[in-house]
Amino acid sequence: MNVTPWEVEGVIDYSKLIEEFGMQPFSEVLPEIDNPHILMRRGAIFGHRDYWRIIEAMRKKEPWAVMSGFMPSGLPHFGHKMTMDEIVWHQSAGGKAFVAIADMEAHSVRGLSWEKTRELGMLYIKSIIALGLREDAVIYFQSKSSHVKDLAFELSAEVNFSELRAIYGFNSDTSLAKMFVTAIQAADILHPQLEEFGGPKPVVVPVGADQDPHMRLTRDLAARISIFSFEPVEGGVRVRSRKGAEYLSSLRDLEFDKKIYEEHMDIFGEAEEIERAVRKIEVEIGGFAFIPPSSTYHRFTTGLTGGKMSSSKPESYISLLDPPEEGAKKVMKAFTGGRATAEEQRRLGGEPDRCVVFELYSFHLIDSDEELNQIEAECREGRLLCGKCKKMAAELVKSFLKEHQEKMEAVDLSNYTIIG
Amino acid sequence: MNVTPWEVEGVIDYSKLIEEFGMQPFSEVLPEIDNPHILMRRGAIFGHRDYWRIIEAMRKKEPWAVMSGFMPSGLPHFGHKMTMDEIVWHQSAGGKAFVAIADMEAHSVRGLSWEKTRELGMLYIKSIIALGLREDAVIYFQSKSSHVKDLAFELSAEVNFSELRAIYGFNSDTSLAKMFVTAIQAADILHPQLEEFGGPKPVVVPVGADQDPHMRLTRDLAARISIFSFEPVEGGVRVRSRKGAEYLSSLRDLEFDKKIYEEHMDIFGEAEEIERAVRKIEVEIGGFAFIPPSSTYHRFTTGLTGGKMSSSKPESYISLLDPPEEGAKKVMKAFTGGRATAEEQRRLGGEPDRCVVFELYSFHLIDSDEELNQIEAECREGRLLCGKCKKMAAELVKSFLKEHQEKMEAVDLSNYTIIG
Repeated sequence: MNVTPWEVEGVIDYSKLIEEFGMQPFSEVLPEIDNPHILMRRGAIFGHRDYWRIIEAMRKKEPWAVMSGFMPSGLPHFGHKMTMDEIVWHQSAGGKAFVAIADMEAHSVRGLSWEKTRELGMLYIKSIIALGLREDAVIYFQSKSSHVKDLAFELSAEVNFSELRAIYGFNSDTSLAKMFVTAIQAADILHPQLEEFGGPKPVVVPVGADQDPHMRLTRDLAARISIFSFEPVEGGVRVRSRKGAEYLSSLRDLEFDKKIYEEHMDIFGEAEEIERAVRKIEVEIGGFAFIPPSSTYHRFTTGLTGGKMSSSKPESYISLLDPPEEGAKKVMKAFTGGRATAEEQRRLGGEPDRCVVFELYSFHLIDSDEELNQIEAECREGRLLCGKCKKMAAELVKSFLKEHQEKMEAVDLSNYTIIG
Repeated sequence: MNVTPWEVEGVIDYSKLIEEFGMQPFSEVLPEIDNPHILMRRGAIFGHRDYWRIIEAMRKKEPWAVMSGFMPSGLPHFGHKMTMDEIVWHQSAGGKAFVAIADMEAHSVRGLSWEKTRELGMLYIKSIIALGLREDAVIYFQSKSSHVKDLAFELSAEVNFSELRAIYGFNSDTSLAKMFVTAIQAADILHPQLEEFGGPKPVVVPVGADQDPHMRLTRDLAARISIFSFEPVEGGVRVRSRKGAEYLSSLRDLEFDKKIYEEHMDIFGEAEEIERAVRKIEVEIGGFAFIPPSSTYHRFTTGLTGGKMSSSKPESYISLLDPPEEGAKKVMKAFTGGRATAEEQRRLGGEPDRCVVFELYSFHLIDSDEELNQIEAECREGRLLCGKCKKMAAELVKSFLKEHQEKMEAVDLSNYTIIG
């Protein structure tokens, strides 16, 4: 199994991924979430890091944000729709939404012209708005955000070539631009915590499982670039300074019980309150005080023809801009969980958990659990055969695409602030 | 001998440097220059690359520029004054002047805060203005120039880790920021040729000899990022496209005799005219069409105590902000080309070419050749002893510093545009 942001090979065992990468299973936090999205309920989102920060912020009605991005190197498809739906859901659950168009990545890694990345980027922006993104989102092209570019430079002082090689498999031939893009992406994730955007806050990044290396690096960088670090001690928090012990003196006036050592300070009280107070001071003295970003991980979208989606095989995915009839046709040709013959399927039943059509129903086309459960039951019992089922799905895809494209057409960008 | 932008060790043999690095001796172009600066006449500037481009542009009164930069990690001293004098001279000879404050380098490589780099940077800016820089210069802090930062990203796609390792001796532990700064510096040098600044033009970069690796890399990057390349053929120029042969079709309407091949085009006529016409078209179709930058190389400034100047030894150099009395005292303690005893010196004469005091006279303190020649003769003949000579130099340094600091004090920055 080889999962890096650049490639995904072989079949993915998600529980193994959770274990190996040190994520947490999303099922653990699901009961704490009000009105979870179908992608949460139905297991498309299978893992997370520190999602409890988001749940707590929601509960306490404290500021938090959701952030993710799209590389404009091809057309938006149902895989991107997952991330878009997640951003929109988190926005309506109270998070400030940040949407990046990763044009610097598309330009330098994929070689697209700026004009092309702009043109494609606008399609992603119109799509996520058509899917419900509200006006108070921060939508930006990386290449036009000074906040992101300048933060990327700061972060780039904290990472070296051997680390990039280990995380991304870079080698001596890797261009400096491709290396620098990793810092840009870390800045994408951390910049909602800049003072200009209200300072340190929990931020959740909904991504595909292959993006976890980015998340781990970004969490490390968030810590390295901030002044104070925290670790639990009995009854409180041990605070250290990464930038020299002299910074500890700025914490002397905090109204908590304290023990002051040469190289650290133990502060007694409620951990969360202490960290908040220390971060406030760090921002006052010019530090970043970043909170490690949270993340959710969704499954890879299976290609319609089985295996992985590939932009070089247009029949392997449905673009959100496919003509509706075209989208419907692709569904009709899709790889299903059906048996070799109709007779066999009537006898043994279908296998919805191996079926891309059922995946489409489950993650995109059918909101009602009752309806979905009925389809699943009829499939398993051999009462619903693939031909009929695909026709139903094709109709749903057709009307979804028609409606989506009409909404995209009707998007009024003048209500939105787009940095780009 | 180890000369990289990061270190200079041992004694420098300038003619060997010229040979090894493939520079040209400055003496070759000196006769072509009207009213050359004393640093040119007196051999402080010993080498160059493509300075003929500047001479031709001066002669034909075509646009050209001079560009150099200063890292604000310490106080400006007489070493920096050389570069400043060179920029000012080229500006008054008709070049558009660009002055970079390399705060991104000082911040990421030397670890200075942005506040500190800003404060120090302003001292360099006031110094070069006190030395005569006129208002129409472009003065900028790297961190505030979007032109430079965005061009750096474009250039960074054209260089990889193995090349940076070979040029700068970087290794796996080198931070990404330190790597990216090399692209920033290349962008410093090339950005005067952006359309926003009037498009492709000859640009001369006066630097210390240790900066030649930067120049070589930048010249390579200038070529790699541009579409068309040129090589001589009988009666004209062979033009190739680095970005795909399809670009050659945009040259079809050029009014020269042409032979069109599949992978290149031979264009007949005056080479310079052809290149200019091709570059014009490249800019029209969105390319950079950079002209390889020219450079001049000046000698390293010898430390007052012999050997190299070091910011950790304040007695080894005179800062332009030293109190005048302090500067004078440093001269009195300087290492000279004198003999062991006064008797010996009267008999054998002094050695001005090994004397830092004479270097000060020659490169900074004495404009009149007649006066300088007289001091040199009296020294060599043993008639001028070091004590008296140092006293004269100390007086000159004192009054220079006093006047310079008064001028700095009187600088009216409101007449200047500073990007920062």
